[in-house]
Amino acid sequence: MIRVTVWNEFIHERHNADVAAIYPDGIHNTIAGFLRPHPDLEVRTATLEEPEHGLTEAVCRDTDVLLWWGHAAHDRVDDAVVARVHRRVLEGMGLVALHSAHISKIFTRVLGASGVLIWREAGERERVWVTNPGHPIAAGLGDCIEIEHSEMYGEPFGIPPPEEQVFISWYEGGEVFRGGNCWRRGNGKIFYFSPGHETYPIYHHPQVQQVITNAVRWAQPQGHWAYGFRNVLPEQAHEKIVAAGPSVHGPDGTLAGG
Amino acid sequence: MIRVTVWNEFIHERHNADVAAIYPDGIHNTIAGFLRPHPDLEVRTATLEEPEHGLTEAVCRDTDVLLWWGHAAHDRVDDAVVARVHRRVLEGMGLVALHSAHISKIFTRVLGASGVLIWREAGERERVWVTNPGHPIAAGLGDCIEIEHSEMYGEPFGIPPPEEQVFISWYEGGEVFRGGNCWRRGNGKIFYFSPGHETYPIYHHPQVQQVITNAVRWAQPQGHWAYGFRNVLPEQAHEKIVAAGPSVHGPDGTLAGG
Amino acid sequence: MIRVTVWNEFIHERHNADVAAIYPDGIHNTIAGFLRPHPDLEVRTATLEEPEHGLTEAVCRDTDVLLWWGHAAHDRVDDAVVARVHRRVLEGMGLVALHSAHISKIFTRVLGASGVLIWREAGERERVWVTNPGHPIAAGLGDCIEIEHSEMYGEPFGIPPPEEQVFISWYEGGEVFRGGNCWRRGNGKIFYFSPGHETYPIYHHPQVQQVITNAVRWAQPQGHWAYGFRNVLPEQAHEKIVAAGPSVHGPDGTLAGG
Amino acid sequence: MIRVTVWNEFIHERHNADVAAIYPDGIHNTIAGFLRPHPDLEVRTATLEEPEHGLTEAVCRDTDVLLWWGHAAHDRVDDAVVARVHRRVLEGMGLVALHSAHISKIFTRVLGASGVLIWREAGERERVWVTNPGHPIAAGLGDCIEIEHSEMYGEPFGIPPPEEQVFISWYEGGEVFRGGNCWRRGNGKIFYFSPGHETYPIYHHPQVQQVITNAVRWAQPQGHWAYGFRNVLPEQAHEKIVAAGPSVHGPDGTLAGG
Repeated sequence: MIRVTVWNEFIHERHNADVAAIYPDGIHNTIAGFLRPHPDLEVRTATLEEPEHGLTEAVCRDTDVLLWWGHAAHDRVDDAVVARVHRRVLEGMGLVALHSAHISKIFTRVLGASGVLIWREAGERERVWVTNPGHPIAAGLGDCIEIEHSEMYGEPFGIPPPEEQVFISWYEGGEVFRGGNCWRRGNGKIFYFSPGHETYPIYHHPQVQQVITNAVRWAQPQGHWAYGFRNVLPEQAHEKIVAAGPSVHGPDGTLAGG
Repeated sequence: MIRVTVWNEFIHERHNADVAAIYPDGIHNTIAGFLRPHPDLEVRTATLEEPEHGLTEAVCRDTDVLLWWGHAAHDRVDDAVVARVHRRVLEGMGLVALHSAHISKIFTRVLGASGVLIWREAGERERVWVTNPGHPIAAGLGDCIEIEHSEMYGEPFGIPPPEEQVFISWYEGGEVFRGGNCWRRGNGKIFYFSPGHETYPIYHHPQVQQVITNAVRWAQPQGHWAYGFRNVLPEQAHEKIVAAGPSVHGPDGTLAGG
Repeated sequence: MIRVTVWNEFIHERHNADVAAIYPDGIHNTIAGFLRPHPDLEVRTATLEEPEHGLTEAVCRDTDVLLWWGHAAHDRVDDAVVARVHRRVLEGMGLVALHSAHISKIFTRVLGASGVLIWREAGERERVWVTNPGHPIAAGLGDCIEIEHSEMYGEPFGIPPPEEQVFISWYEGGEVFRGGNCWRRGNGKIFYFSPGHETYPIYHHPQVQQVITNAVRWAQPQGHWAYGFRNVLPEQAHEKIVAAGPSVHGPDGTLAGG
Repeated sequence: MIRVTVWNEFIHERHNADVAAIYPDGIHNTIAGFLRPHPDLEVRTATLEEPEHGLTEAVCRDTDVLLWWGHAAHDRVDDAVVARVHRRVLEGMGLVALHSAHISKIFTRVLGASGVLIWREAGERERVWVTNPGHPIAAGLGDCIEIEHSEMYGEPFGIPPPEEQVFISWYEGGEVFRGGNCWRRGNGKIFYFSPGHETYPIYHHPQVQQVITNAVRWAQPQGHWAYGFRNVLPEQAHEKIVAAGPSVHGPDGTLAGG
């Protein structure tokens, strides 16, 4: 059983009538709604205005894969929660960053990236090409996904080179974008998927739902890296050594500061 | 001319007699001292206790390669200065992170890494193996560098997979460590080099000096990526398109928040 | 069910008494023997002197993960079989290359690498460090594996940068080696694991068996990339275009040669 | 001084009137012609029908960067010459693979890739986007290069993940392609650049010429990795060891075969 948490800032759905018409219960509930029927997934949601944004220590510890959607309020996400999520990713939790999460605190922190790009909101056609057929995240798709109305996200995209490139998008207006990218950090797997602008019904598109479902399964933890330093004392060395030289550490390994 | 800034927290050299005996003017001045004779390098230093840690906007803008040494006071480095340096790296400035900088704010931020490792301060022998002969950072070296007394840094090391692996260290006590690693982020090149514990005269070692000099030249900027978003209006698209659909942005591209 | 084929050149076990004493039925049967009890694995073997080295089209098509051990007769492996195996890897078959397979035709072809290294056969101690705890291939291990008698394989190792580094070895004689490395090529996963010199009982070591079992599961196909070109005719384009300009291809897409 | 060799199969220019009209002296001479005026470049050419395809041991040894254009006769390139060039790349020679070289022996061998893609020869518009501004290969360009008539090369492209992504192409007919990719193998740098179909005057385009000139400078060797094995005898080990156990090697390190 994969324990999934769908996080959404949940702002535009409450304040913009066009968005509300498409996602009356919020983007998080639409996404949770198409994930829940899968018997291997246990799905909950969390949103910005819940205490600790709904991402308490307990929730983070009990989450295998976290999905993140945010756009208007990246700066209102608490740094302490971002650090907590970041640490969980390094320990092994999967992260699926959606659409404008490219500039969210958690996405840019976990990659050390700027996340910058060029963009245009004109409802143009996007064609998401599969660049790696047979990658588990592309399972069940054809050559490409057509999205009739989409926001353009274009290159240059401020990211480290993807470790696996699953999708690249074509836009009617003439641009391209690396919109489906995999990385690993510590033991955590990270997938970024660009489609999902809130003024179009993109998360109702069956193939987009297929990608996100595939990504959740791909990103599930495959192990755990206990986070933390460890001082190995001379007498604990695998080979016999005799300690030599001066020290800046106390006998318990603590460092003498300034 | 490569403009180099050597940054050092400069604490143990002032508070620990053993360290002071090895680096009476501080590690930064020892490093600057062996870099300065090279006519292609223009070298200055900066330290923690200077205003803005000596890393003002002007200094960052005028720096091509920044070297970073810190150990006891990582948490005293101001987040705003870290963000400024991070941004400069993404724009193209080189970063050479030395020894305990593996856990500095700037190194962990720019890579999104934990930087954790295992360690032992016992003055044991370290042998730094060249894993990529002919890499410019290994120029002028033989098969390996012997360091008679060193602090052990051991695996697992919490870093993203190095894009180029230049050195891996062997320790007398039985451990190994990826101690010479290259990454690129945005347009900036990053090199981490592990030797350099302050209680041993490691930065006086001619081959260590060779590595650092090589690294400065390798890390110099080769271009500039202007940092920032850009909104491309429908009428600016390369292909003729007709805008469609609702919007969450105002006519000037600003986003309506919550 | 993962369909596993263990390939071995099977020479030294028949011609060298020391090796025969350790592996009386051949290395392939020792490896197959510890894999077979796992109910998710269906295991067969193949060796050099069988017709087509036991790797016919049918066997390759019905293999999910191929293990490869060779040392004395790399040059006797037929190029056509190598090309067949290479193609299957690109389509999605996993490849686990063991010990001296670092210089086998299939390993060097699939990576485009030289596979060169330094080596010493002196029965010295090797310690295989886990550099990525929680990676599925390291599951069930502690910090490191101790191998009392081993052949030294040392850096520099002529490989592309590993996409995931799972193990690095320490040797008593003073060397280090990247001995546990992951790559992806096409849809296939590749794992190289260095321990396994035939004059020591290394494949009888429980933790080495654990690594190989883990690697088989990690390397299983997760999809299929149909290998081949495809000509998309102008009238098949997703966007309407009007063909223009001269051509070097006939109407059926075939190229006019010299 | 960078010593450049431009290799061309030189077939279509002699047998197809349309191609001959664009490149009367062959593609190699057009490319050599725009490289030669640069005072840091020393340029020669080589073609398929010369002895050893013009790539003798002496020529390979004296070449810093090799450019490769081929289309109709990949299978007529001698395997021994391919192995020679491959080895030189691993030692440090740069390789710039152009257009249909994606399926040449040397490109697929050096990467272990299939090089497959989808394609359409319809003279449609291509827009080559810069995905990494400030990368040295993108120096002097704007946001993108427009090529009015081009052959479509589309995804999926059978390559390992690029280590640096410099360009991605957009096509009028609706496809995308990773057309400007960097890798490193051994000490050699490899750049693939897709524009260059012979029925359009693409190598006369000033920005395409800029990219190729930049790529030559980027790919120049920065060191040399002597290719070959090395046996380190027990008495040559850095740490004192006592040899133990049986051997399959003779005293001179040669292996007893079957």
